[in-house]
Amino acid sequence: MFEAVELHKKVSKEDFTKEVLELRTQLLKAQYELKDTKSSVIVIISGVEGANKSGVVNRLNEWLDSRWIRNHAFWDETDEERLRPFQWRFWRAMPPRGTMAIMFGSWYTQPIVNHALGKWHGSQLDAEMRRIEELERMLTDDGHVIIKFWFHLSKSAERKRLKGKAKNRLTKLAKKYLKSYDDFVASSARAIQQTDTGNAPWHLIDAEDNRYRDLKAGKILLERVREILERQKSSAPSASRAPKTMPTLTGRTVLDTVDVEKKISDAEYKKQLEKYQDRLRQLAWTAREARRSVVAMFEGWDAAGKGGAIRRVTAALDARLYSVISVAAPTDEEKARHYLWRFWRHLPRDGYFTIYDRSWYGRVLVERVEGFARQDEWMRAYQEINDFEENLALHGVILCKFWVHISADEQLRRFKEREATPWKQHKITEEDWRNREKWDAYAQAINEMVMRTSTTFAPWTVIPGNDKKVSRVEIVKYLSNRVEKALEKK
Amino acid sequence: MFEAVELHKKVSKEDFTKEVLELRTQLLKAQYELKDTKSSVIVIISGVEGANKSGVVNRLNEWLDSRWIRNHAFWDETDEERLRPFQWRFWRAMPPRGTMAIMFGSWYTQPIVNHALGKWHGSQLDAEMRRIEELERMLTDDGHVIIKFWFHLSKSAERKRLKGKAKNRLTKLAKKYLKSYDDFVASSARAIQQTDTGNAPWHLIDAEDNRYRDLKAGKILLERVREILERQKSSAPSASRAPKTMPTLTGRTVLDTVDVEKKISDAEYKKQLEKYQDRLRQLAWTAREARRSVVAMFEGWDAAGKGGAIRRVTAALDARLYSVISVAAPTDEEKARHYLWRFWRHLPRDGYFTIYDRSWYGRVLVERVEGFARQDEWMRAYQEINDFEENLALHGVILCKFWVHISADEQLRRFKEREATPWKQHKITEEDWRNREKWDAYAQAINEMVMRTSTTFAPWTVIPGNDKKVSRVEIVKYLSNRVEKALEKK
Repeated sequence: MFEAVELHKKVSKEDFTKEVLELRTQLLKAQYELKDTKSSVIVIISGVEGANKSGVVNRLNEWLDSRWIRNHAFWDETDEERLRPFQWRFWRAMPPRGTMAIMFGSWYTQPIVNHALGKWHGSQLDAEMRRIEELERMLTDDGHVIIKFWFHLSKSAERKRLKGKAKNRLTKLAKKYLKSYDDFVASSARAIQQTDTGNAPWHLIDAEDNRYRDLKAGKILLERVREILERQKSSAPSASRAPKTMPTLTGRTVLDTVDVEKKISDAEYKKQLEKYQDRLRQLAWTAREARRSVVAMFEGWDAAGKGGAIRRVTAALDARLYSVISVAAPTDEEKARHYLWRFWRHLPRDGYFTIYDRSWYGRVLVERVEGFARQDEWMRAYQEINDFEENLALHGVILCKFWVHISADEQLRRFKEREATPWKQHKITEEDWRNREKWDAYAQAINEMVMRTSTTFAPWTVIPGNDKKVSRVEIVKYLSNRVEKALEKK
Repeated sequence: MFEAVELHKKVSKEDFTKEVLELRTQLLKAQYELKDTKSSVIVIISGVEGANKSGVVNRLNEWLDSRWIRNHAFWDETDEERLRPFQWRFWRAMPPRGTMAIMFGSWYTQPIVNHALGKWHGSQLDAEMRRIEELERMLTDDGHVIIKFWFHLSKSAERKRLKGKAKNRLTKLAKKYLKSYDDFVASSARAIQQTDTGNAPWHLIDAEDNRYRDLKAGKILLERVREILERQKSSAPSASRAPKTMPTLTGRTVLDTVDVEKKISDAEYKKQLEKYQDRLRQLAWTAREARRSVVAMFEGWDAAGKGGAIRRVTAALDARLYSVISVAAPTDEEKARHYLWRFWRHLPRDGYFTIYDRSWYGRVLVERVEGFARQDEWMRAYQEINDFEENLALHGVILCKFWVHISADEQLRRFKEREATPWKQHKITEEDWRNREKWDAYAQAINEMVMRTSTTFAPWTVIPGNDKKVSRVEIVKYLSNRVEKALEKK
């Protein structure tokens, strides 16, 4: 694959100077136009050792306006990164819309190195490449541009380079890479071939001549940014892509399989709740020792009692071990990224709990029903969410997803009660009543959500909620059972 | 000091239930009103071992609306935290305006523990308390409320508690604390007395009876939040506090001591630049090994050549070792916090460089001259900035502050040149011309800034900039000298 790149291409100093002047003007112009779009540009810098990737990064920074660019080097992994799912450190570096990020090292580096050094089987590499492909599709579907550069040197050119920079601190590591050049190139080729997609193609560049290398990279960058600028001009805003009328809900659904009317006595409630809270309390410490994290996610009808249930969970936990994330309107930093970004950022470190009060499922619930997300957006969200949850599961995160279910009558009763109780009044708004009118549309969205996102690694748990005592006991019970089982396995 | 707290106060279950109902209603109401103010509330939970601080945190979370509250436990320090100045992890947790943060553990914990265990001298504790006092004043000056709780147990009460929870995983540590109870209480008393200020007073609470403890904490929280709500209502918006007319600038100033006209030949430029870039390149690797971080901060007149100078610095650095932060308009997450927050968040880990293109000095430059900050705000900013930089210096950060200076004539020449050069046109805007008209006001602000913030630990370096070659060489030279000297010392 790389033979086509090893062509010893060169650019003279004069040609370089001349071409750069024009290129630079155009790059700045493109960057300036990009600023007002909804797209961000991710530039991935990768390639063989000795290709002087640092030089390319510096050159691009020299040409571009630094106000709309950030550089991220994925090099030393910090413990905060190591203690979270693999992709976390990359999500952390996602650029806001209208700007660029240059990623020196990327989600490709570790998998390729692992495979080249024989730590990973081919199938592990392939599986990781599939996940990366999904990540990249998710980003490009959201309008972002991913430009993947691979800077290549033939074995003889690499040897020449490495000898030439004897003083550099990386020499030792570099020698090691030279020794494993063939393995490294084979692993890279395998990774590249699997991820050379239409939406995020690879650009292989001969790195023997610095001027050729930088000019080529700059030109490709310009071309790809122009492409997205053109596309933004041509595609009309989304009116035509608004959700179609949804078919009305008929027949028995997933939600109907739950006995919402289930009841429990006060005495039984107290006994059971205490029992499972005690269990959860102990398990949280065990999970901490075992370095396993827990994500407990709560969705449910308005007034279903999510908040009260969450407090019964946290009452069992030491305050040092958990965070509760209440999902409200996104901040502008959040709006400027893919919708999953705001959930990635709050993932717990290994050994801790994060409890989400509402979640990433807003995309296929309120955003779908209220038309905040276009149909194509919420349609592909099911797959995006499954991929996200798979990433958590792979890292060993114990994920529990609760849907707290109540009947429409019970909701009405609670709304009225809230209006009558002084310290509950702030919990009931016009919006709640408006949402209630769309009960059937929500029911349909919920059913579809539960069906499409109940995976083996992240099943939904539907909790009967008309009796709050029942839902609280069942949640704490289910959670402690799940954590217990998960801790037994590993 | 603590004797006044050890009064074995108790609250009966009936009284508790009755009082909580009213308290909770009022707390929710206060929290709801707080939402629309510019104040955030920081609740610090501290006290002796066995006081069940986790229980208080859970109770407050039970009473309050979780949508506007976040809990932060400062317990395990991550390496990302350890590799930055001490206060970084707390700045990281600062709540946005209108919300609350409950801090379990705080900036007090480590200093008190260090002193109690004999790792720190009294003078070290006192010095740290002074810095904390300044941090708290900075926050309360900005309109935030700091509520500091100390939950106390007498020695005999603590012993009783610790025996009672034999199953708890902290037992071992708890026993250790019991042994050092007297030392711990003495250190705490010393810390508390020094930081019991009018703007951020301590609230000592007897923790023997859980109900008394929680009710008392809840009531104080309510009272303090109400205070700030009252204050917000009474104080008129800031029209009356707008900057007074500034005296015109006369006589010779700090800036005049620099020979802006200094020149250098092309040959000399090339030779010198390469020499100091080579030096800086090596030093950056040495700094990484020595785990020392560098903050290089660039301020200067519009068109002074900051960007070009920064590129000459980064050209000498491996792209993995530095980040450039271009300071533009703050995001809403940044606006929702103290103005220094956005600079704290980008501080480098030990071993890395962060380069700020414009900086925290915006507060006393553009915000002062344009009236974006009130006079009292920019007046106190000098002290706040000095404190911030002292925090960096104490941690061992190598801080270089450059003012790139050009004459008014040279600026005019460059503005015109920018308008005539295609790829520089985006760099010149109406705003630049408007700022230029305020040259004298800026000159006064700059002089005052340099005088008030040139400290022994963070001196200003004024760079002559009419000849870009001179400024670039001087910056790279100064930076490499500073890094070299700093590395020799430790």
